[in-house]
Amino acid sequence: MGNCFFSQNKSTNVRVSLPAVCFVWEMAMVVLFGIFVRYNYEADAHWEDYRKSHNISSDIENDFYYRYPSFQDVHVMIFVGFGFLMTFLKRYSFGGVGFSFLIAAFGLQWALLMQGWFHSLDPATGQIKIGIENLINADFCCAGSLIAYGALLGKVSPVQMMVVTLFGVTLYSVEEYIILNLLHCRDAGGSMVIHTFGGYYGLAISWILYRPHLKRSGHLNGSVYHSDVFAMIGTLFLWMFWPSFNSAIANHGDGQLRAAINTYVSLAACVVTAVGVSSLTKKGGKLDMVHVQNATLAGGVAMGAAAEFMISPYGALIVGFFCGIISTLGFAYVTPFLEKRLKLQDTCGVHNLHAVPGMLGGFVAAITAAFASEAVYSKTGLDNTFGFQGSYAGRSTGTQGAYQAAGTCVAIAFGIVGGAAVGLILKLPIWGDPADDYCFDDEAYWEVPEDEEGIPPVLEYNNHMAHKQQEMGESTFNIEQS
Amino acid sequence: MGNCFFSQNKSTNVRVSLPAVCFVWEMAMVVLFGIFVRYNYEADAHWEDYRKSHNISSDIENDFYYRYPSFQDVHVMIFVGFGFLMTFLKRYSFGGVGFSFLIAAFGLQWALLMQGWFHSLDPATGQIKIGIENLINADFCCAGSLIAYGALLGKVSPVQMMVVTLFGVTLYSVEEYIILNLLHCRDAGGSMVIHTFGGYYGLAISWILYRPHLKRSGHLNGSVYHSDVFAMIGTLFLWMFWPSFNSAIANHGDGQLRAAINTYVSLAACVVTAVGVSSLTKKGGKLDMVHVQNATLAGGVAMGAAAEFMISPYGALIVGFFCGIISTLGFAYVTPFLEKRLKLQDTCGVHNLHAVPGMLGGFVAAITAAFASEAVYSKTGLDNTFGFQGSYAGRSTGTQGAYQAAGTCVAIAFGIVGGAAVGLILKLPIWGDPADDYCFDDEAYWEVPEDEEGIPPVLEYNNHMAHKQQEMGESTFNIEQS
Amino acid sequence: MGNCFFSQNKSTNVRVSLPAVCFVWEMAMVVLFGIFVRYNYEADAHWEDYRKSHNISSDIENDFYYRYPSFQDVHVMIFVGFGFLMTFLKRYSFGGVGFSFLIAAFGLQWALLMQGWFHSLDPATGQIKIGIENLINADFCCAGSLIAYGALLGKVSPVQMMVVTLFGVTLYSVEEYIILNLLHCRDAGGSMVIHTFGGYYGLAISWILYRPHLKRSGHLNGSVYHSDVFAMIGTLFLWMFWPSFNSAIANHGDGQLRAAINTYVSLAACVVTAVGVSSLTKKGGKLDMVHVQNATLAGGVAMGAAAEFMISPYGALIVGFFCGIISTLGFAYVTPFLEKRLKLQDTCGVHNLHAVPGMLGGFVAAITAAFASEAVYSKTGLDNTFGFQGSYAGRSTGTQGAYQAAGTCVAIAFGIVGGAAVGLILKLPIWGDPADDYCFDDEAYWEVPEDEEGIPPVLEYNNHMAHKQQEMGESTFNIEQS
Repeated sequence: MGNCFFSQNKSTNVRVSLPAVCFVWEMAMVVLFGIFVRYNYEADAHWEDYRKSHNISSDIENDFYYRYPSFQDVHVMIFVGFGFLMTFLKRYSFGGVGFSFLIAAFGLQWALLMQGWFHSLDPATGQIKIGIENLINADFCCAGSLIAYGALLGKVSPVQMMVVTLFGVTLYSVEEYIILNLLHCRDAGGSMVIHTFGGYYGLAISWILYRPHLKRSGHLNGSVYHSDVFAMIGTLFLWMFWPSFNSAIANHGDGQLRAAINTYVSLAACVVTAVGVSSLTKKGGKLDMVHVQNATLAGGVAMGAAAEFMISPYGALIVGFFCGIISTLGFAYVTPFLEKRLKLQDTCGVHNLHAVPGMLGGFVAAITAAFASEAVYSKTGLDNTFGFQGSYAGRSTGTQGAYQAAGTCVAIAFGIVGGAAVGLILKLPIWGDPADDYCFDDEAYWEVPEDEEGIPPVLEYNNHMAHKQQEMGESTFNIEQS
Repeated sequence: MGNCFFSQNKSTNVRVSLPAVCFVWEMAMVVLFGIFVRYNYEADAHWEDYRKSHNISSDIENDFYYRYPSFQDVHVMIFVGFGFLMTFLKRYSFGGVGFSFLIAAFGLQWALLMQGWFHSLDPATGQIKIGIENLINADFCCAGSLIAYGALLGKVSPVQMMVVTLFGVTLYSVEEYIILNLLHCRDAGGSMVIHTFGGYYGLAISWILYRPHLKRSGHLNGSVYHSDVFAMIGTLFLWMFWPSFNSAIANHGDGQLRAAINTYVSLAACVVTAVGVSSLTKKGGKLDMVHVQNATLAGGVAMGAAAEFMISPYGALIVGFFCGIISTLGFAYVTPFLEKRLKLQDTCGVHNLHAVPGMLGGFVAAITAAFASEAVYSKTGLDNTFGFQGSYAGRSTGTQGAYQAAGTCVAIAFGIVGGAAVGLILKLPIWGDPADDYCFDDEAYWEVPEDEEGIPPVLEYNNHMAHKQQEMGESTFNIEQS
Repeated sequence: MGNCFFSQNKSTNVRVSLPAVCFVWEMAMVVLFGIFVRYNYEADAHWEDYRKSHNISSDIENDFYYRYPSFQDVHVMIFVGFGFLMTFLKRYSFGGVGFSFLIAAFGLQWALLMQGWFHSLDPATGQIKIGIENLINADFCCAGSLIAYGALLGKVSPVQMMVVTLFGVTLYSVEEYIILNLLHCRDAGGSMVIHTFGGYYGLAISWILYRPHLKRSGHLNGSVYHSDVFAMIGTLFLWMFWPSFNSAIANHGDGQLRAAINTYVSLAACVVTAVGVSSLTKKGGKLDMVHVQNATLAGGVAMGAAAEFMISPYGALIVGFFCGIISTLGFAYVTPFLEKRLKLQDTCGVHNLHAVPGMLGGFVAAITAAFASEAVYSKTGLDNTFGFQGSYAGRSTGTQGAYQAAGTCVAIAFGIVGGAAVGLILKLPIWGDPADDYCFDDEAYWEVPEDEEGIPPVLEYNNHMAHKQQEMGESTFNIEQS
């Protein structure tokens, strides 16, 4: 019945708009790739000639072998990590994993172009030359829009998410260029450019799209036993591969290894404190799956910008220690407050997992950079780690610290302003988003298997029966579903 | 009840045949490995002496470091990718993931032998010398039989699948030898040797084993909400690691990187167009999970043969663009047609995901090869990419294109003829396959937990009640299901 | 109801103890890391200077590139592998995956310290210098405690598991030092130090904590259909990545590759024989998911110690062949026997998957070592493989074999004695462990979603209806379940 309802309900009928968006944008990709995108020298068949003429001793020196394993780990985080983390809702698992898939698959193509124009343009030919690092950065860029989806989960249409992604990738590429190139900040793991931007971008959109009557679908805005276990798949793959996320584009050698170590220990500390606080916040000391699924990851977010720095293992441990506490308290107290007082609905609590820890990570990096010294890094190490080369040779660590802090503010500004603007666009009545009564329901956009709709049927049946009994005071049976 | 039924039902009792096959074949493996299989020079303790005597500068030049990360990704695709993709049926998830596990674990041993005899035989000793590349190829070889299993899912016994695998691996090794060695085709990602062969092999078997009364178990030939989410685990791991699949045995350096880039962009385009078409084919523009689970992967299948070539990123994008459309339309219209008109029952739609995209991939490679030029590849690059060395030095790209096309036809022929022959063997009444009424049901071959058998309880309850009503001649009873 | 019950039930209220343990121990970690833990030369910003001054030709020679891919595979095994393998219980999936997460995240920090003091102490500074290999070993160390958790699953509180982990990691580090350093055994994959120790450690604890009335929660000590599918995620990631587990810290070059090959073939054989025996032990030859989920992994456990040796592929195949049989028979007959006769309750059957195969692996390595010869290994190979260098130069292979056997006995002794001692500590009435009636139930320590508590709805429904019947005085109403 719900079934027929939705199919007749224009409001969620995307049979014209979704295919139109998919095909128009994909055709645009084909044309733009045709004009602009080519292989870089490491991916081109001329590589062997190049290698020999440049005295590169072996194929193993191809950047592919330095970065491909990390790339694949990042790839898993983007598609399985983010995708399954969003399957926790009892009736929106299809939308969680399915639309994440669509968002990221489209987003990475647009990201290859946008980031390519800023970073990989071959002045000679005016073409973008892509290699392994471009694939990693394209995945990173999609993360920003997936984070935004976390704030909007269950309340928007796939068409709206395509729009969020198109603008999200565009905004990301611009703020990334400002932060990394103009301000010359370091942000190997994207605390600023990915998490801070993505978090505030999603929150601003959600704030503009505030739904006063969202309570009407409140019975669907929660998990069931097995949907929580599915979400743990996402949590764990994000948690396990975060060291790869933060080290994927770090400097070869010690840079990548140090980033991996810092992230590994930070995340470990974060789990322990998140569990401790979760237990404190609940009657009987019971743990809340929402905290375990999300707050345990804050340590990775916050280690992003300083991942490459000589923050030392105990420094990373301290970052994880406090992020586990802050993030869990955020889920327990801030998210409800934001919804009640600030009319800000944040389905997955990206405020606590991305926005705040990302911002903290930006400032951690600023402080760590400001206190960096040749004694700790060595002259070579300092220049490599902070890129004090070329026009930045001789920049002081104090100056670098100031720029890192400024970069964090740029990310926040882009997120809030950009998100507000995109939110206004999404208010147009043409996107097929669901009415307040039909949020968090896969019925709106998916062919859901007839015989099981995620509601534990018998419970509902029982409620229904109890009701019937009183009504009819007899044993006449009339059973309905959904 | 079903429980007792099956345990008394001889037709699915494999208590003699399954253990017999497992032990006889495994003992044969031990004997044959004992006679034939040894470590190659990179895996042998003599490696360090070899390395120094051959002026190999470092351990990092051991092929292990070039290919092991890709091998592990391929390994995940074979066991989790194929395995979980086949958990989508509401009551056959054990069989989907469990029998895939058995098939691949046995198949890879037989593959190490069969492929070893063709490719890794040490003429001096008459022994097979295996290294990392043999492990990758053994996994590839199993993929052929797993694809065939997709067409037969739910309709065959584990014993039959062992037979399908024994012959599947054997046929694969022969056609692979003909295509790669005799015709000297390039097929890094196995569009021809894996997907085309495997797809038609499974379809031919299924066609021979046509079950006129399969409708009797039609109520089990579908998914439930959570089984569709499980299947997405398979889909995503296949999708994410496909760049590793197509680059795992590509040439060191630019070859591997180029194969990864081409596959990455092709798959991204495929997702977007598959979603677009899926929405077009349904009332209200709703998405079909079957399309998202399967058609999104066609771009990886079709990029297999041309993965290493200089097809350029937009070329790969175009391949993915069209495969997403063709595969989705296949699931929507061709599979039902095949079953109605051609008496061909294809449980997972391997026709649309493997057979057709694989064949297309073969021809894409033929065309790309035919138009390859030194201008684009450089002389060195051309010779490396197409292996124009030794007795093939000086083969023209046009000739190469013709051979690629011929190779595709060889794969189709081996699939259809071999599958028909194996199908006839499987018609013998000794394999313990289920009656038409008991297909798609784990009860046949698994100890299913008593208290939950995957049937949505309310359905069963309703059937039961409807039945009761007639018995009781009560008419006040009226059950509806959405 | 259960809900209120537990929250009032002091016995499982960990609101004080769990946060206390988490914060006290995590703060201790921060202090100890601050005093002791620093980056090693490969992770330090001085690396480039070091590299050049030591004529290391390239960044790719940083151990990061030799071991990081294997590290990430091991990381997945620890968190997703062990975690999801323990989700098989119908109502303890949260505890299975969630507490594994907590155990490993805390354990790896303590392991970095304990193992660091034994193996990575810089005599000059008295500090622990960590690199990529330390991360792998820390993960290995946690595996010991996770194995122990398998024997205790559902019967202990999270606070108890923190204690089990604290002592488990400590004991592990000591026995590892004795076995690897004092006895100079080889154990690349940890058959002895991880699996034998961890298995007996858990069994000894469980034996001390014997619960005479555990049957009271017997209805929860089993799986449901989808929880068995979740467990297969754990099984497959353990199975697929085991070659990385056994090769992660093996010698560069042939050592790592040989370990991967041996594990790969051993596991493949193990699956086939485990399935064969499983079918033999059941009525109608039906397969038991418990066997497929667990016994299929025994081949990896048993190949751990001899992974690097020239056991040859058929030798590895024979190991897997017999371990598949032994482990499956263990699950079918030994575990029930242990519970009935020896009052030893082993939830996950770690006796059959870890203790016994680990012990066998230890003796396989002893025999293989005893029969090693320069003819097979070459002088260089023999010295590299068994570390016959420095003070061990000239140790005979026979002697080495004897030491390997002795090492296995040390692991058993540490497991049994250490486990018994820890078990006595856990008997103190202060740990918040559940009463016999409330074992295997997430209600005790988790906020379980209200609307679905893992009880198969129809059972509940029947209770409800039976109840209704009496109320309504109708007797024609009688619902059965197959």
